[in-house]
Amino acid sequence: MNNEQIRSVIERLETHKTDLYQKDFLLTWEQPIDNLHAVLLAADVLEGLWEANVSTRVFEGGLAVSNFRDKSTRTRFSFAGAASMLGLSAADLDETKSQVAHGETVRETANMISFLTEVIGIRDDIFLGEGHKYQAQVAAAVEQGYREGVLPQRPAVINLQCDQDHPTQSMADLLHLQKNFGSLESLRGKKIAMTWAYSPSYGKPLSVPQGIIALMTRFGMKVTLAHPQGYDLIPEIIDVAGRNAAESGGSFEHTYDMAEAFRDADVVYPKSWASYQVMEERTALLHGGQSGKLDELEKRCLADNERYRDWECTEKFMELTRSGKALYMHCLPADITGVSCAAGEVAATVFERYRPATYNEAKHKSFVIAAMILLTRFAEPGRVLDKLLDQAQPRRLLL
Amino acid sequence: MNNEQIRSVIERLETHKTDLYQKDFLLTWEQPIDNLHAVLLAADVLEGLWEANVSTRVFEGGLAVSNFRDKSTRTRFSFAGAASMLGLSAADLDETKSQVAHGETVRETANMISFLTEVIGIRDDIFLGEGHKYQAQVAAAVEQGYREGVLPQRPAVINLQCDQDHPTQSMADLLHLQKNFGSLESLRGKKIAMTWAYSPSYGKPLSVPQGIIALMTRFGMKVTLAHPQGYDLIPEIIDVAGRNAAESGGSFEHTYDMAEAFRDADVVYPKSWASYQVMEERTALLHGGQSGKLDELEKRCLADNERYRDWECTEKFMELTRSGKALYMHCLPADITGVSCAAGEVAATVFERYRPATYNEAKHKSFVIAAMILLTRFAEPGRVLDKLLDQAQPRRLLL
Amino acid sequence: MNNEQIRSVIERLETHKTDLYQKDFLLTWEQPIDNLHAVLLAADVLEGLWEANVSTRVFEGGLAVSNFRDKSTRTRFSFAGAASMLGLSAADLDETKSQVAHGETVRETANMISFLTEVIGIRDDIFLGEGHKYQAQVAAAVEQGYREGVLPQRPAVINLQCDQDHPTQSMADLLHLQKNFGSLESLRGKKIAMTWAYSPSYGKPLSVPQGIIALMTRFGMKVTLAHPQGYDLIPEIIDVAGRNAAESGGSFEHTYDMAEAFRDADVVYPKSWASYQVMEERTALLHGGQSGKLDELEKRCLADNERYRDWECTEKFMELTRSGKALYMHCLPADITGVSCAAGEVAATVFERYRPATYNEAKHKSFVIAAMILLTRFAEPGRVLDKLLDQAQPRRLLL
Repeated sequence: MNNEQIRSVIERLETHKTDLYQKDFLLTWEQPIDNLHAVLLAADVLEGLWEANVSTRVFEGGLAVSNFRDKSTRTRFSFAGAASMLGLSAADLDETKSQVAHGETVRETANMISFLTEVIGIRDDIFLGEGHKYQAQVAAAVEQGYREGVLPQRPAVINLQCDQDHPTQSMADLLHLQKNFGSLESLRGKKIAMTWAYSPSYGKPLSVPQGIIALMTRFGMKVTLAHPQGYDLIPEIIDVAGRNAAESGGSFEHTYDMAEAFRDADVVYPKSWASYQVMEERTALLHGGQSGKLDELEKRCLADNERYRDWECTEKFMELTRSGKALYMHCLPADITGVSCAAGEVAATVFERYRPATYNEAKHKSFVIAAMILLTRFAEPGRVLDKLLDQAQPRRLLL
Repeated sequence: MNNEQIRSVIERLETHKTDLYQKDFLLTWEQPIDNLHAVLLAADVLEGLWEANVSTRVFEGGLAVSNFRDKSTRTRFSFAGAASMLGLSAADLDETKSQVAHGETVRETANMISFLTEVIGIRDDIFLGEGHKYQAQVAAAVEQGYREGVLPQRPAVINLQCDQDHPTQSMADLLHLQKNFGSLESLRGKKIAMTWAYSPSYGKPLSVPQGIIALMTRFGMKVTLAHPQGYDLIPEIIDVAGRNAAESGGSFEHTYDMAEAFRDADVVYPKSWASYQVMEERTALLHGGQSGKLDELEKRCLADNERYRDWECTEKFMELTRSGKALYMHCLPADITGVSCAAGEVAATVFERYRPATYNEAKHKSFVIAAMILLTRFAEPGRVLDKLLDQAQPRRLLL
Repeated sequence: MNNEQIRSVIERLETHKTDLYQKDFLLTWEQPIDNLHAVLLAADVLEGLWEANVSTRVFEGGLAVSNFRDKSTRTRFSFAGAASMLGLSAADLDETKSQVAHGETVRETANMISFLTEVIGIRDDIFLGEGHKYQAQVAAAVEQGYREGVLPQRPAVINLQCDQDHPTQSMADLLHLQKNFGSLESLRGKKIAMTWAYSPSYGKPLSVPQGIIALMTRFGMKVTLAHPQGYDLIPEIIDVAGRNAAESGGSFEHTYDMAEAFRDADVVYPKSWASYQVMEERTALLHGGQSGKLDELEKRCLADNERYRDWECTEKFMELTRSGKALYMHCLPADITGVSCAAGEVAATVFERYRPATYNEAKHKSFVIAAMILLTRFAEPGRVLDKLLDQAQPRRLLL
């Protein structure tokens, strides 16, 4: 993007009235649609500024705290990158040896790490029924700390994946779709198939498929969810997707047939997950420390998976899509047949064709996170971005 | 604070002749009183500048190395925050797999991590008789490295808790008292009760009570130390407190009666610890790798603790204090009865009443650490702070 | 160095035509000699600017990713320091719980951590035949990602030690030699003894001796490699050293006699290592997870070592060198007899005499790494350094 194009995206951003300032970003379905538009537009501007070598350093110091309660590589680096481009210092909270059991302690820890902190990014996706709850507690704690005069500023809590949603992923995916089809408007009526896919592993989180069906239904897309019997998502979020579709003029279909989902799809998103019932069982066993029963559960689930080895995104399935050319999406890493496993979610030829596209999809995440920080920390994000463009301070020294 | 108020604190700072430049901050009782005044005043200014959105970035790069030989959450984030607000990059030295056994090796490691380093913060509180010694060795090593021309700059070593003292905590506590009572002068003659309190755990460090009795006696306070028989602090530090009180015109009392300590106290600081005799025994067993005997020691100590369950800071005890309204202090996290444990150091109603106050107490730590860095790294800290105020570079982008 | 001296080093840098821009730094023997000159000169300038308190912040944010597949203290801090002085945020990739098994996955991970990344530093020295291969794969992956438009910039991959070479060490060593003898030119004809030395440990990497013989032979030095029978380096790299010597007009000798190597040497570099045959065996056992056989191998090697306890750099051996005053070098930490072990690589009196010199040798590493980043990320590094000197932005606030 040249400066004029960046300027015009900022102008569009300013047409959206957002209420993210001094707030958090936890679940997309709690966000008014203007906030979602604003995040996409701000992310696009930040990406443009980065590529144009314009510094986006809006802070001269301050902390960006991350708390990864589950493994992470790409989100970790996206968060670190977002912090760095805004001028914040990343600091990771390693809880491995601490006790965060009672509400009281969550409140205290949240305040103790926040005295010089602008944002707290949290990944907490292992225990069903708990991840979002924990993030909301942290958000309430820093809100209270700010109101009580303890915290000089009110850090934003950003969901880097919970048991319900994965908004930095789904918003990056939406930005990818927007760029691919030319505009958000052009997504109306486009069919996206969010389907389960076979994997030789088990226990993959539900947050991605849930995030996708809940978000894409808000933009008038025709969303089809497909999975084998017994691989259910959380029912409340299925309801959310249905309501969103009704409101936006899109549609939401639910099927147990992968081919039906792929038929005439403009976009396919085949990905493995465990059912929420399994996740509930697993959560109970993890809490009980019953590793023997956990092994049994894993065996049972893997055996279940084996019955659905044909849920693989093969060239055959791709041929069913619109003109055989649907956009293939994945949050990565994908289980690629013959590459990262003997049999997996996607055929090697399909994946390789779309590989650079999936990498670009992933790239947006850094900028989406940076946009969320900007929108939650500044009352007038459009003017902030304008000022950065005016200043034109080079990010990388210019001769 | 507005700019004029900040300016007047800087002026007061300039009235104190300090000798911290090119030195370390290890034990408060080794510091001339002017250094202590200067740290408090500089911390206050830095807190004011942060709240006024004035950048305090005195470095454009350079490292702030931390070495945590024991768990830490709040000090870790305080140190990271202080580094970030001054423009340094935090880098943590994880020794888990290295051998730091011989004096030679300490010297070498100290130099190897210091080529681009302005400050080294160390927590080493597990082994009695060793923590301070190690910190002093590191300080001597970088001093030598600087004199030999190996190090381009002489990093300051800052004690983030050792076996003897916890100066970033006690100085933050002192700043809290000063703000609470209006001035350092008004602390003269005020009674502070540093008392042991019951906890269902054992082995908590001695550095906080030792740091408090040694520091508050220097400012004319009436310090009463109370604990059950057998929960002694290091005798040499008891002596330090006595001498300090004699010199400052304050007083230092030592009792085995919690009620006596609380009676008419203006400030109470009830907190669990293990006796130095236990810590000595534990150190020997840890070195000997005798985990069986360590378990025995723990059992014995926990049984001892049980005899003093009534050493809890209840509403009843609080009623004994001046007008029943003493300031309750804690370095956090506190063991709160019915909240974080069945029975602990403090009643839930007492803690909740003072909770925001204890959070504010904790907040000062970031700024105290930043002040220590500033004073040890700059010969004229007052002029540095003046310049920051003059420049008025926003920390967070201003429109 | 004063500004004029710095300016003249920059001028010399500009006489060298380099091709490092948009490339990597993996093995010195793959680099044209101009690149090596340029790294040395740029490192010298950066060291001068640091000491003159001139900011070298050429980036306003962006990541410097490190990936340490083996323990590291000094290289870790050198890399963190280099990142900080250039304005990058260090971010460490901890693979402990990830699977990086297939080429495909290396490619993906390399891209996922690189969206906002300027440099990736990798240490991978444990498995013979693999470290360099992995680094080259990462380099190819980010090159492809950049060409495909996935990465906004092309991060440089820098070898922080592999199975073959340790270029940040050997280049720091070369800078040390240059400073010690006055110029690179004056190294011509000087004799350097790279010798094995006894250590009570086993399995030390080959990368340092290999890096030294391959690099110093390029600058006309008379390089003698000495070790007991059976402690061979990788044969291909022995060949490289021979060819280099022939081309540069230096020489390369290979002996099994430590005294012969020390005789009339201007520089000695006595250091323990395991033979490449042992490293090959060890690699196979590590891959097979055969810890029993690994223990056996260790025992056998330690027993072998015992036969060569007299390979210690004693005062006696030092007397054999030119006027008894050869420069002693070591990459540190050294096994010092009577200090860090009962019997080791070097006598305590020898080491202590050269200790500050070895520390200075180590200091250069930060600046060598920073120079490699500068040269790989900027097409006109000389003009960049000139601009930094012109701007004269203080690194540490000036009054």
